[in-house]
Amino acid sequence: MCKEYQGSLIPLVTHNLPELRFSQRRNWASEQAIGFLIQQAVENPEVVSLAAGLVDPELLPVAETRAALDKLLADEQRAKQMLQYGTIMGAEFLREQLIDHLAHIEKRSRDDLNIDINRIVLTTGSQQLLSLVGEVLFNPGDICLVAAPTYFVFLSTLNGLGACTISVETDDGGMQPEALESKLEQLEAEGELDRVKLIYLVSYYDNPSGLSLSEERRSAIVEIVQRWSKRNQIVILEDAAYRELRYDGPTFSSVWSFDESQETVILGQTFSKSFSPGLRVGFGVVPSQLVKPICDRKGNEDFGSANFNQHLIATVLEQGLYQPHVEHILNSYRAKRDCMLDAVDKYFSGLTGVRWVHPHGGLYVWMTLPENVDTGFDGPLFNHATKVQNVMYVPGDLCYAIDPPQRPRNHLRLSFGVQTLEGIELGVQRLSNAVHSII
Amino acid sequence: MCKEYQGSLIPLVTHNLPELRFSQRRNWASEQAIGFLIQQAVENPEVVSLAAGLVDPELLPVAETRAALDKLLADEQRAKQMLQYGTIMGAEFLREQLIDHLAHIEKRSRDDLNIDINRIVLTTGSQQLLSLVGEVLFNPGDICLVAAPTYFVFLSTLNGLGACTISVETDDGGMQPEALESKLEQLEAEGELDRVKLIYLVSYYDNPSGLSLSEERRSAIVEIVQRWSKRNQIVILEDAAYRELRYDGPTFSSVWSFDESQETVILGQTFSKSFSPGLRVGFGVVPSQLVKPICDRKGNEDFGSANFNQHLIATVLEQGLYQPHVEHILNSYRAKRDCMLDAVDKYFSGLTGVRWVHPHGGLYVWMTLPENVDTGFDGPLFNHATKVQNVMYVPGDLCYAIDPPQRPRNHLRLSFGVQTLEGIELGVQRLSNAVHSII
Repeated sequence: MCKEYQGSLIPLVTHNLPELRFSQRRNWASEQAIGFLIQQAVENPEVVSLAAGLVDPELLPVAETRAALDKLLADEQRAKQMLQYGTIMGAEFLREQLIDHLAHIEKRSRDDLNIDINRIVLTTGSQQLLSLVGEVLFNPGDICLVAAPTYFVFLSTLNGLGACTISVETDDGGMQPEALESKLEQLEAEGELDRVKLIYLVSYYDNPSGLSLSEERRSAIVEIVQRWSKRNQIVILEDAAYRELRYDGPTFSSVWSFDESQETVILGQTFSKSFSPGLRVGFGVVPSQLVKPICDRKGNEDFGSANFNQHLIATVLEQGLYQPHVEHILNSYRAKRDCMLDAVDKYFSGLTGVRWVHPHGGLYVWMTLPENVDTGFDGPLFNHATKVQNVMYVPGDLCYAIDPPQRPRNHLRLSFGVQTLEGIELGVQRLSNAVHSII
Repeated sequence: MCKEYQGSLIPLVTHNLPELRFSQRRNWASEQAIGFLIQQAVENPEVVSLAAGLVDPELLPVAETRAALDKLLADEQRAKQMLQYGTIMGAEFLREQLIDHLAHIEKRSRDDLNIDINRIVLTTGSQQLLSLVGEVLFNPGDICLVAAPTYFVFLSTLNGLGACTISVETDDGGMQPEALESKLEQLEAEGELDRVKLIYLVSYYDNPSGLSLSEERRSAIVEIVQRWSKRNQIVILEDAAYRELRYDGPTFSSVWSFDESQETVILGQTFSKSFSPGLRVGFGVVPSQLVKPICDRKGNEDFGSANFNQHLIATVLEQGLYQPHVEHILNSYRAKRDCMLDAVDKYFSGLTGVRWVHPHGGLYVWMTLPENVDTGFDGPLFNHATKVQNVMYVPGDLCYAIDPPQRPRNHLRLSFGVQTLEGIELGVQRLSNAVHSII
C-alpha cells in the first residue's frame, strides 16, 4: 500500500529568486484546498459559495460574548489574569468547566464520567489538536486509517507529515468495522501493521458525508482497535467537531465513552461550530501516555493558546450563556438544512444517477453524481459551475485518502452554513444548471 | 560539529502502560525547561521567582482592552466579523495597522518602509512564527547559528526538529561578525555549509543576556549572510520581541531594515511584552519565498490564529490606545530594572568573580558567577537556592547551543518583570545568601 506521497493536488507557484532550500516537510505540505477555493471566490465575486465550511455569521454570539467580557473585565484581577500568559495545557478554569460540559453532553454524571482534569488539553481550535496528535505519532510512512470519504484538512495535515492515509469502506452507518478488521488483517499480512498509528473518525455528522457512526459500531471499533493493539498501541482519534449541531435523528454517546481504559481514544471537540470560530478554542481529552508528548510539542509550537479566549469561553459556560445559544442556532441550521434538501430534491430529482445524504446534523450535504461526471478542480463541472453558473462546491476527490490511488471523482460537498435560505436555493439551482449542461 | 542531538536536559517521566510508539520528533522534543521551573515553583510556594519571564501583571492593559472591546462589540457587524473564522495569514485590518506601527518604531515613513501587506503573517505569539520558520526550513541535521547565550525556548524548538544549533561568539555588542564569518568558513571547509539554513538573532535586549546587537554589526551581519548565500540562500531570523521595552541607551534600526532586498531577513515581533501575552498576537515580516511555505504549514497546524484577538489589537492601535500604554509600562519596568541592579550591586559587589550585564531594556539581568560554581538544575546552587533560600532563577547552561557540547555552567538569568520592587530586592538578597553558602 501507498509507498510514497502522491504530491500536491494543486500546482505550486514558482519564483525567480535565488534558491531557498526548504525542509522535506515543506515539500510534503500541499496548499490547503481551501486556499484555492478562497482564490476562486475572490476572482468570481458573483459566485454563490456552497463550498465554504464557515458558520452562519448571523448566528455568531455577539450578546453572549459581550455579557461574558463585561463580567470578566469589570473584575480587575480576573481581567489581569486572562491578559497574562496562561499554561501550555490551558486555563484550569476552562478545563474544570469542560468536565461539566462533557458530562452534560454525554448525559452522564460528573462522577460517572471520571475525567482527570490533567488529561484535558486546550488547543487553538480542534485543528491544532489534530495537528499535534499527528506530530507526536507519525514518522514518514506511518499509516492512518480513515473513512472514505473523510475530512480533507486532516488529510492535508497528515500528508504534510509524510504519513500514509488509507481508506476504510464506509456506508450509511459510517466506517464499517468488518472493513476495518480486514484492512488490519491485510496490513499484518503485508508486514505493515506496525506502521499503523491512528484510526481517524469524525463520529458525528461527518465532514463531508454528513453521516454519523452508528451506536453499535462505536463499541465495535474500540474493541477491534484494542484487540489489534497487542504488539503496539493503536490510537483512535475521535473528531467530534459537529457533535452539538444535531437537528434530529438519534443521539449517540461518544466513541471515547466506550473506551473504559481511557487509553485508546482521543476525544477532540471545539467551540468553533457551536459558538465562535474566531476565538479558536478547541480541546482534547487525551490518553495519559499522550498528554506529555502533546504538551511538549505544543510548548515548542506556541507555548499555549490564547489564555484570554479560554477565560472567555469558561465564563460563557459558567454563566449559563452557552446552552441557550446552541439551542437558538440549532433551529436556524435545521431550517437551512431543510431548505437545502428541499432545493436538491426540487432541482436534482429528475436526474438519473444522482443521490444525496440526508444529514441529521452538521453543515454539509454530500452528493453523488453519475460516475462519468468529474467534479474535480480540473474537471469540466467545477469550471462551468464557477465561471458560468457562479456557484462553488468542494470536489469530493479531495476527501479521500491517498490509498487506494484511484479516488472516486463523482462526489461533491455542499455547505448550508453560510448562505441565507435564498442563497441556498439559488446555489442549488445554479449547480443543477451546471450539472445539466455537463451531462 | 554536532553530529547528533544530545538529548533532553531533564529526565522524562516513564509509564507502565502498553507501548505507544511515538514519532522521532516526539523523541527529539525535550520538555520545556519552563515546565520544570513551574513545577519547582508549585512545590515550593514560598519561593521568590526571578526565573519566570512573565510580564508584570500590574501593568496589563485592562482599561485599554475594555475600551477597544466596547467599541468593537457595540458594532454588530464588526463583532460578527471578529467572531467568524479569519484567514491563515491573519486579519487584513491588523496587517494594515502593522505597517504604520512598524513605520513608527523604525522612525521611517510608510512609503519609505515599502512593506507589502502580503508579507505580513500573523501568528499565535511570535513563538509560533519561530516554530513555523523552523518547520519549513529544517531537516534533521540542518544547522542554525545562534548567539552564545541565546533564547532557550527556540533552542528547544530547534532540538525538536532534530536541528543542530551552533554557538557564535558574542560580546557586549552581541554576535561578533568576525566570529560568524569564521564559523561559516569552518563549516565550508568541513563540507557542511549547505546544511546552514538560519542565523537566529535576538536583536534588542536579548533573552537572556540583555544585550543588543550594535548598529554597525546589524549591517555587517546582513552583508556577511548575503555574501555566503551564493550557493543557497541562508536566512536571518530577527527576533525583536523586546524591542519596544527600551528604558535608556541607544536606539537601533532593525536588522531587517538593513536588508534592502527584503529576501534575507525575517522580522519577528509580538504584542506579548508590550501589551498582553494572554492575547497571543505576534507577527512576522517575511521574505517573499517564505510566505507561502509558512502559510501552508500554518494551515495544517491551526488554519489561522484567533481572528478575535487580531481585531482587538488592531483597534487598540487604531484608537491610539497602544503608545500611551507602552510609555506607561516603560516607566515601571525602568524602575524595576534599576531596583534589581541596585540590589545586585548591594548584595554581590563584594564577591570576587561575580559580574553582571547592565541592560538598557527587556526583562533580564544576566549574571556570571566564578567558574567553579555550577548553576544548573542538578548543581548545588539551584537546589540550595530553591529549597533553602526560596529563590529561583534560570540556569545559564539552558541558553547555549548543543555545539560546542561543553556549555558554560556558571551563568544565570534573573528576571525583573513579575516581582514587585520588594520582591526583587528580597530575591536578590536570597540569591546572594545561596551563592555565599555554596562558595
